[in-house]
Amino acid sequence: MKRSLIEEARAKASEYFKKAGIVMTAGELENIEVADFGLNDLYNTGLQLVVYINTDYYCAKEMVLFPGQTCPEHRHAPMPGIGYRGKQETFRCRYGTVYLYVEGEETKGRVCHPSREDKGCYTVFHEIRLEAGEQYTIMPDTKHWFMAGSDGAVISEFSTTSRDELDIFTDGDIKRITEIED
Amino acid sequence: MKRSLIEEARAKASEYFKKAGIVMTAGELENIEVADFGLNDLYNTGLQLVVYINTDYYCAKEMVLFPGQTCPEHRHAPMPGIGYRGKQETFRCRYGTVYLYVEGEETKGRVCHPSREDKGCYTVFHEIRLEAGEQYTIMPDTKHWFMAGSDGAVISEFSTTSRDELDIFTDGDIKRITEIED
Repeated sequence: MKRSLIEEARAKASEYFKKAGIVMTAGELENIEVADFGLNDLYNTGLQLVVYINTDYYCAKEMVLFPGQTCPEHRHAPMPGIGYRGKQETFRCRYGTVYLYVEGEETKGRVCHPSREDKGCYTVFHEIRLEAGEQYTIMPDTKHWFMAGSDGAVISEFSTTSRDELDIFTDGDIKRITEIED
Repeated sequence: MKRSLIEEARAKASEYFKKAGIVMTAGELENIEVADFGLNDLYNTGLQLVVYINTDYYCAKEMVLFPGQTCPEHRHAPMPGIGYRGKQETFRCRYGTVYLYVEGEETKGRVCHPSREDKGCYTVFHEIRLEAGEQYTIMPDTKHWFMAGSDGAVISEFSTTSRDELDIFTDGDIKRITEIED
């Protein structure tokens, strides 16, 4: 991803934190993580986030999704051999609307149809709609993806230890760790 | 504590969540926990909180302190016999100013002098001042207490599992679990 696009997305994400009433330090805003998952199509498939704390037991993040932006389908599988217990996570919507899709009966007439759905990159379609103040907890090894509504969304994530590099994506073209070009 | 006082404190705490831009559901606001620590002096020694999630590994809460209100000195000690690893916690100030006191060199000219300090109920005086957007992590078994400045404070807590009933307070008169009178 181009550094200029990262800076553009950081500026936009900062505006969402402001709209949500969430105060960040200057250092946090300068270092917002911008992930395009290696697909080079950030505004369709991407995520912006600030990690507050990530310890051996707990993790807390603040995430921004722009309008219609999707965090693509993935799961956090336990890997006992390396001491990773998978990730249980609680999403709490702070601003806007987020549509979360998890395993379970497909929701008829679901709201979201992400880019690359036709390529088989999405397989779970049970819809949970979260407005500001609402939350949902996802157990380890559960496939999930989420998209913001037309106002974008700010979402707090409370979880067990986060090891993003171990996420398993349905889409074989995804690389979780962003490569930056100048 | 009288039920009428609990309702009064819930209404005030709801106003602080609003000022901080934190959206709660109606159910969460109706059930705000109001703790007076058994001292019957809520506006000096007390805490208001909403627990978002508390699992075997992680916990997240939102806390309100009214202006000058103190959460009294305590520690979260590991109790291996019952599978409790103590509590590591990260405080992130969302609104107002909170003065946090932990073990370490006493801060000369510290800002806060809590009620019952003269009774030996406070023993650690290393001051950390947190404004909105700032955070600090406390390791298990570390004595700490905290007081809001003149605007009150809203503080997010991210932590390992919370078992409030196991907190160890310096003040022998304290009972952590609130008794409600009609």
